[in-house]
Amino acid sequence: MKAKVYVSLKPGILDPQGKAIQHSVELLGFGGIADIRQGKYFEIALDDADEQQARESVARIAREVLSNPIIEDYRVEIEG
Amino acid sequence: MKAKVYVSLKPGILDPQGKAIQHSVELLGFGGIADIRQGKYFEIALDDADEQQARESVARIAREVLSNPIIEDYRVEIEG
Repeated sequence: MKAKVYVSLKPGILDPQGKAIQHSVELLGFGGIADIRQGKYFEIALDDADEQQARESVARIAREVLSNPIIEDYRVEIEG
Repeated sequence: MKAKVYVSLKPGILDPQGKAIQHSVELLGFGGIADIRQGKYFEIALDDADEQQARESVARIAREVLSNPIIEDYRVEIEG
């Protein structure tokens, strides 16, 4: 079973890395960009076959290891 | 209009960062993890209102700026 975890900064938290990317993209001639924010993305392969159990265990990993819950939100997707 | 870009290492490309995370997660007592791979995730806010045009412009940014096409794949999602 495969899980995908997306970690992004909470709205309102400053994202200097995203701003730097936005600046570079504009310098390279791409227009019409209002904002770019960078996050993290994890693909987790699980031995677990039970979807509910996989979802719980990945959510725990996302909360406790992959994200900083003070400044970041996470989202978990489970694939068959 | 909002776009999301996911950049991940192509299958077969070694991911030492993902392996380090997997090792940490296992040390912290989480079991049943077969593999963890890390990628990048970008949220792009566009002034563009036309979906087709937004998709093309974001795909170009993903290909030319956000990813290294030799070792990475990217995926673009457009939201209304």
